Amino acid sequence: MTDDDSLPALIGPVEVVGAGLIGTSIALVCRRLGIDVVLRDTSEENLRTAHGLGAGRAVTVADRPQLVVVAVPPAAIAEAIADALRRTDAVVTDVGSVKSAPLDAVARLVGPDDLRRYVGSHPMAGSERSGPLAASAALFDGRPWAITPHPGAAPEAVGLVEALVLECGASPRVMEPAEHDRAVARISHLPHLAAVLVAGRLASAPEEHLALSGQGVRDVTRVAASDPALWRQILEANSGAVLDLLAEVRSDLDALMVAVAADSGGDLVEILARGNAGTRAIPGKHGGPARPTRSVFVAVPDHPGELARLFGDAGEIGVNIEDVHIDHDPGRPVGLTELVVDRGSADHLLAALESRGWTTHR
Amino acid sequence: MTDDDSLPALIGPVEVVGAGLIGTSIALVCRRLGIDVVLRDTSEENLRTAHGLGAGRAVTVADRPQLVVVAVPPAAIAEAIADALRRTDAVVTDVGSVKSAPLDAVARLVGPDDLRRYVGSHPMAGSERSGPLAASAALFDGRPWAITPHPGAAPEAVGLVEALVLECGASPRVMEPAEHDRAVARISHLPHLAAVLVAGRLASAPEEHLALSGQGVRDVTRVAASDPALWRQILEANSGAVLDLLAEVRSDLDALMVAVAADSGGDLVEILARGNAGTRAIPGKHGGPARPTRSVFVAVPDHPGELARLFGDAGEIGVNIEDVHIDHDPGRPVGLTELVVDRGSADHLLAALESRGWTTHR
Repeated sequence: MTDDDSLPALIGPVEVVGAGLIGTSIALVCRRLGIDVVLRDTSEENLRTAHGLGAGRAVTVADRPQLVVVAVPPAAIAEAIADALRRTDAVVTDVGSVKSAPLDAVARLVGPDDLRRYVGSHPMAGSERSGPLAASAALFDGRPWAITPHPGAAPEAVGLVEALVLECGASPRVMEPAEHDRAVARISHLPHLAAVLVAGRLASAPEEHLALSGQGVRDVTRVAASDPALWRQILEANSGAVLDLLAEVRSDLDALMVAVAADSGGDLVEILARGNAGTRAIPGKHGGPARPTRSVFVAVPDHPGELARLFGDAGEIGVNIEDVHIDHDPGRPVGLTELVVDRGSADHLLAALESRGWTTHR
Repeated sequence: MTDDDSLPALIGPVEVVGAGLIGTSIALVCRRLGIDVVLRDTSEENLRTAHGLGAGRAVTVADRPQLVVVAVPPAAIAEAIADALRRTDAVVTDVGSVKSAPLDAVARLVGPDDLRRYVGSHPMAGSERSGPLAASAALFDGRPWAITPHPGAAPEAVGLVEALVLECGASPRVMEPAEHDRAVARISHLPHLAAVLVAGRLASAPEEHLALSGQGVRDVTRVAASDPALWRQILEANSGAVLDLLAEVRSDLDALMVAVAADSGGDLVEILARGNAGTRAIPGKHGGPARPTRSVFVAVPDHPGELARLFGDAGEIGVNIEDVHIDHDPGRPVGLTELVVDRGSADHLLAALESRGWTTHR
């Protein structure tokens, strides 16, 4: 991370093109800082809503923005970036989820001098909701935010985008556009497509198969509920990196099928163990190495107030809850709640919850 | 579900073979009912622990159990079932996660008269912990529990196993062994293997790729952290049904790769939409149709007591929380907590939380 003092100050005006969830949330952050924000959107309704939220004002002919943030759908993004570079002398960034293909398209639409002012970026936030009504100045708090300068980008332009990212409360991660695209193919697009393939096999499954569903299949398939039209644009914009990974997975799948069919289980154990290693490779909360945690299981009656009572007790016991899972229990109104806590706190939490009358599963 | 009155009464003694998590939990249920329980295990330590929990007593030569429950690892299960059928005249069930292959093996080991007393079953519970110390009489509360009689099974034997399932608080689901194996291949083994394949691609990924990880990849890969040795046994015991499904997924993957590579997105949208349909096909909490829910997002500082305060407030507001997700936020100590609630309660909860000073994301 760059030292804050070396960054250009974000003073505005900031122009936001596309007043959806991400664009409006960035506008709200800037307004909270007292920066003048100008909003553009092809949807009159989005503009009205964003204005109503106090996210910014309408464009005037005299506007000369310091920074333009392009936050339109993937299919429209390159044209909107080029347009902003042509009609202003501002630094221009975008928040699209794919970086290489739009950069190449922009480079074909504008000259190298204008291109110097463009620096792509990608906040890892907000994919499950949409529209300006879902916007919040707190949306980026603590999230990673990739900044992907091309080799010809002006250092002041990169610095200004980094200043925006820091003002939004996010963690800047500077990387090359192609590297970013390989990263999101791996940690976002591939998991999404795996969930889609598993969920696709449920769509026409017999009801008696689905009745045995537990938490595992729900977790694996959850992201497959996202908007197909948006994901089509994302996948098509990153088709190269996605296809490379899908080819690797296809070859892993072939090896898996051979291992399952074979009588000797050594290869199968090796494949399963590599999955173990992959889950441990995901960084822990707060970006540090994953801290050792332990799960504490508590039976909780499924009516209002019971979870509150459990968390109230956990709070009084003074143990920090790292994560929570609530098991969905077909057939009976008692749920199993899994509290994930620091390994060193688990025994204390268990004993203290039991002394308060909770049924725990050790 | 059969009318309870028509079922044979579970009076015991019950013999549990294998005092691990599942076996000991069933023993604890029976002891709570006042039923005499006999425990067997090749591990002296498991036996000592289970005895210490009050789960049952040691075997004597005079024991004549009414029901034997076999709860040993998959690779040892057929021999243990056959042994129980040979040395007792009890009804024998097992709790293995695969049903066809063990049934075939048992049928080769005992005669048809003994086989009449065997009825396989499979509680959908407890895969993430192991050992008698993790046991609980509440483990099966509200869970589906498959009962898989073969065509020659005695109706009274099926009824006695159903009586056990009901006493454990679970929801019995009677189905054929082969149908059960196809069901778990689809709703458990395939999701598991998809998670393993995605996680496998993370194991050697560059750190800067992993730094962009969000909740999606964590959810998709979570189950891949399970024990490889146990899963090898499960997958090998159900290799037929698993390979059938993997072949279907392989063909879906080929179609997906063609769709991503093609410029026209129609096929891709169709594949993504089938994933949408699959997530909707999973039955809702409590086995009914999925109720319409909405997510309410709240910013929560990451230190002890804050989650407690949030759930305390939600409890006082009187809204039932259906599910919770806590976002892992690399880089900053503020988390986004997602509360999933009945759609009709979301606006009330949002307004009431905001009036209590919480920062929500609408």
